Amino acid sequence: VTSYPQPAPPAFVFDLDGTLVDSVYQHVIAWQEALREIGIDLSVWRIHRKIGMSGGLFVRGVLRETGRNLTDDEVRQAQELHAKHYRERIGGVRPLPGAPELLAHLTEVGVPWAIATSGQRRGAFPMLARLGVAEDSPLVTRDDVSWAKPDPDLFLAGATLLGVDPADTVVVGDSVWDLLAARRARALGVGLLSGGYGREELERAQAYRVYADPAELLISLDELGVRRR
Amino acid sequence: VTSYPQPAPPAFVFDLDGTLVDSVYQHVIAWQEALREIGIDLSVWRIHRKIGMSGGLFVRGVLRETGRNLTDDEVRQAQELHAKHYRERIGGVRPLPGAPELLAHLTEVGVPWAIATSGQRRGAFPMLARLGVAEDSPLVTRDDVSWAKPDPDLFLAGATLLGVDPADTVVVGDSVWDLLAARRARALGVGLLSGGYGREELERAQAYRVYADPAELLISLDELGVRRR
Repeated sequence: VTSYPQPAPPAFVFDLDGTLVDSVYQHVIAWQEALREIGIDLSVWRIHRKIGMSGGLFVRGVLRETGRNLTDDEVRQAQELHAKHYRERIGGVRPLPGAPELLAHLTEVGVPWAIATSGQRRGAFPMLARLGVAEDSPLVTRDDVSWAKPDPDLFLAGATLLGVDPADTVVVGDSVWDLLAARRARALGVGLLSGGYGREELERAQAYRVYADPAELLISLDELGVRRR
Repeated sequence: VTSYPQPAPPAFVFDLDGTLVDSVYQHVIAWQEALREIGIDLSVWRIHRKIGMSGGLFVRGVLRETGRNLTDDEVRQAQELHAKHYRERIGGVRPLPGAPELLAHLTEVGVPWAIATSGQRRGAFPMLARLGVAEDSPLVTRDDVSWAKPDPDLFLAGATLLGVDPADTVVVGDSVWDLLAARRARALGVGLLSGGYGREELERAQAYRVYADPAELLISLDELGVRRR
């Protein structure tokens, strides 16, 4: 038998909003309100297309499209208003179909997983209970890293929490920003449609596979090499 | 000079929601509430992807995806609940950037246009004032036709209102359902990103051109052969 380097067992790092919980619309509406309060009226679709980026990049991105300019203070103010309006809506956020079952199954078969989100810890932490997972589950948020997506920091930190090489992780996300960040982390990016992006957009951002939602990912885990060990 | 059949001058038939007014999220939320009230819990993205279809096809389509079945009475009930919840939110609906200017420009240069929507007249009519156009502007709604999109009836009726051959019209819409209905009406389908679909989805549904929103369409009218006459 030829001797060869053994590949590492799989490990998963999940995005949160639009990937495990159905919260993208709440974020969109919270951003629309926050921007209106600082005098910027934006169409909903332009906001949706940038959800999942770091809040700072998000505000600068939507402004570039509208030709407006803001000071650093105004960008910070918009981010704080968004966080406030999102917290007002957090009660309506539900897990996506199959998300609790997917995380429970990975735990059961011994596949390590973490959650890595561009959102703040105080918005993300309450989601753990709704997902039916332990309060001390590996969670990396905006508060833990220097730069959010599409920088790779969140996924690199997620892999570090799990004690695995980032290049051996599968990163699961719903936005092109997740997939761009996954590539920069040298991880395998998998896309979900549940955040509202189209399949073609995720494939063009080089998703390795695209599934509808966590429920379809769960029944397709064999495609990603997950076995009972 | 060779004699040849003269092509007809251009005429436009516009979808309303997501094409001229920024109302897609209000429709999504109204559908989510309506379906919850009849015991169906659906992810937001599945609803968004079917917005713009006829209400009946919409309900059957989302149910097929979830494996549920409803009686005709329950389908009607869901449609009525959606209409009620949408009317509660209609105050927050604004014109998309460039929509009033686009319609005013077409009127000014003598290009006929109509609006054709899968929605009901009582939801659509109040939008005419917000778009800055006359109350008697050509408007076809769900109430006027046997079948809504993706059937071609709405666009055929729109062309008839204008007194032009449907094959000589440019149909402008934001969803794949608009583009499928445009082809069945033998019209030229043009896509807008302002309803939240991705460019690739609209191109795959054979959009002749895709623009960001009415503002970009307005500055690109030369690409569609619109001239001052």
